[in-house]
Amino acid sequence: MTAVIPVGVETARDLVGPAIAAAVDRLSPEVRAVAAYHLGLDGSGAGKALRPALALLSARAAGASPDRGVPAAVAVELVHNFSLLHDDIMDGDTERRHRPTAWTVHGVGAAILAGDALLALAQDILLEDTAAQGIWAARCLSASVLRLIAGQGADLAFEQRNDVNLPECLTMAGDKTAALMACACSIGAIHVGAPPGLAMGLAGFGAHAGLAFQLTDDMLGIWGAPEVTGKPVRADLRARKKSLPVVAALTSETPAAQELAGLLAGAEPLNEEDLLRAARLVEEAGGKDWTENEAAAQLAAAENCLTETDMPDDVRAEFAGIAEFITARQW
Amino acid sequence: MTAVIPVGVETARDLVGPAIAAAVDRLSPEVRAVAAYHLGLDGSGAGKALRPALALLSARAAGASPDRGVPAAVAVELVHNFSLLHDDIMDGDTERRHRPTAWTVHGVGAAILAGDALLALAQDILLEDTAAQGIWAARCLSASVLRLIAGQGADLAFEQRNDVNLPECLTMAGDKTAALMACACSIGAIHVGAPPGLAMGLAGFGAHAGLAFQLTDDMLGIWGAPEVTGKPVRADLRARKKSLPVVAALTSETPAAQELAGLLAGAEPLNEEDLLRAARLVEEAGGKDWTENEAAAQLAAAENCLTETDMPDDVRAEFAGIAEFITARQW
Repeated sequence: MTAVIPVGVETARDLVGPAIAAAVDRLSPEVRAVAAYHLGLDGSGAGKALRPALALLSARAAGASPDRGVPAAVAVELVHNFSLLHDDIMDGDTERRHRPTAWTVHGVGAAILAGDALLALAQDILLEDTAAQGIWAARCLSASVLRLIAGQGADLAFEQRNDVNLPECLTMAGDKTAALMACACSIGAIHVGAPPGLAMGLAGFGAHAGLAFQLTDDMLGIWGAPEVTGKPVRADLRARKKSLPVVAALTSETPAAQELAGLLAGAEPLNEEDLLRAARLVEEAGGKDWTENEAAAQLAAAENCLTETDMPDDVRAEFAGIAEFITARQW
Repeated sequence: MTAVIPVGVETARDLVGPAIAAAVDRLSPEVRAVAAYHLGLDGSGAGKALRPALALLSARAAGASPDRGVPAAVAVELVHNFSLLHDDIMDGDTERRHRPTAWTVHGVGAAILAGDALLALAQDILLEDTAAQGIWAARCLSASVLRLIAGQGADLAFEQRNDVNLPECLTMAGDKTAALMACACSIGAIHVGAPPGLAMGLAGFGAHAGLAFQLTDDMLGIWGAPEVTGKPVRADLRARKKSLPVVAALTSETPAAQELAGLLAGAEPLNEEDLLRAARLVEEAGGKDWTENEAAAQLAAAENCLTETDMPDDVRAEFAGIAEFITARQW
């Protein structure tokens, strides 16, 4: 598999980028500076624009022109970046998108506040549309924000636990990542007044694609090349994250699982040698294979949702292209 | 003036408290525990319930029964507590309501997340009402959240500046405190479909009462008794906050202003002796008198808004009672 950025993701950045910049311009100077830094509005370190692309496609799935999906795309991208700003503080991550994270540059307080502002701004943008579909889009976003927060809470709590099982780990990933992806894939359609059947089909696609995304992300967090991912190498293992490959390995009932559990159970910081050994043990215990297979299964389930949902063929093909990119990407 | 808690504030707690508990129950276990601790849902250290009382009165001002104001009251109180959770981290405050702050007990990450959850929950509750007034109430809240964030950003930035003037300090207080108070006073009416004239009159009352509240708060932050306020003594001075009495003093062109400026300009931590001297200099420079006079003027302006806005007499009297309590309180 190759991992060329789908053309829809590039065009989404062109359409949604200026609208995000305009939204951030509404913030007060102190807060705006931090938000603009994090978002890379000076041109450096912009994100992948996957979610905006999905939101624009979502509007097109309902027969609307992509520009009618812009407010929903902006709202979803702002929520995504709210969560990145706060997660980087909680996880102590110092690097993202090949740059120092916002809290390391502007301080924890300013980064908290910038995250708050992006969350508030996201809801505010959707509420500018006072028609009934505006409120349904806002509810869609609000529900996914609450799940995202629940997932992040579980993720943090799991770091302190040694008995996390795969079902609860999948629930956590579903909340932390797939909920907002499901929202991205359906909110554009909801915002232009699509029928519930279409919105639900799109949300189903997004939920499966979102899990495929997180499974891939977790693999990159262990085996990804930092010069490509823009994140420090093996940061997830260092933080003792109970990511999906790690939990699959730990629950595999193999000798490697036992050795891995012993390594992760300690309280002392893990050195480079420990981290390399942990990565090897996850692989030996079958954690990498399980994750690759599960990502493929989620991708297939996502594609099945597309097949079963009525939408223009070109839109379906673009959704499928993004889902494939998600699992094949190296960053 | 005495400072007996108005009866409406006590009854608001009875009506809104269970609804807040039910809202928090919707959060995931990890996040709920921190939110419940902060809110004192075990019965210890509950807040003053001023904003819920104002929101219920706001519904009554529009001729509705107080229970119809409950969703709006819950939403405003959740936003208030979102801001307290995050502000305590940003300000490094270790004590609130006579208890250790949430971040000192549960950690910074968990407290950030609990604040996020309360903000998301507040919007979600208002959006449960998909009628047109639901979206207007949500917009009212959303606009005040953005101002609250702008105000907190300015407040933090002012700590590093020595040239803050009174107009920008009043703008900061208007954003940080008065905007949500204006929202509390009008959102209940908006949520039951009140005409714009009533909503604007109530918002005007709330904006002035909110400034009176902040002016009083700033005085308590310097001269309040910690055993009554539940906050560490002179914490605002210690953090070099450019609170309204301090800025009034600094801009007074008196010898005491010069001495105060010298004291606050340094970078080293201020010891107890410095703090006592700073408090005395603020008073000598006229900062206390100015603040008392300004609080009285804002209270009078608030009462004027009440007189000029059409509402039931008993509701007007209760609003006036809360405004008087706000400026007379010792905590």
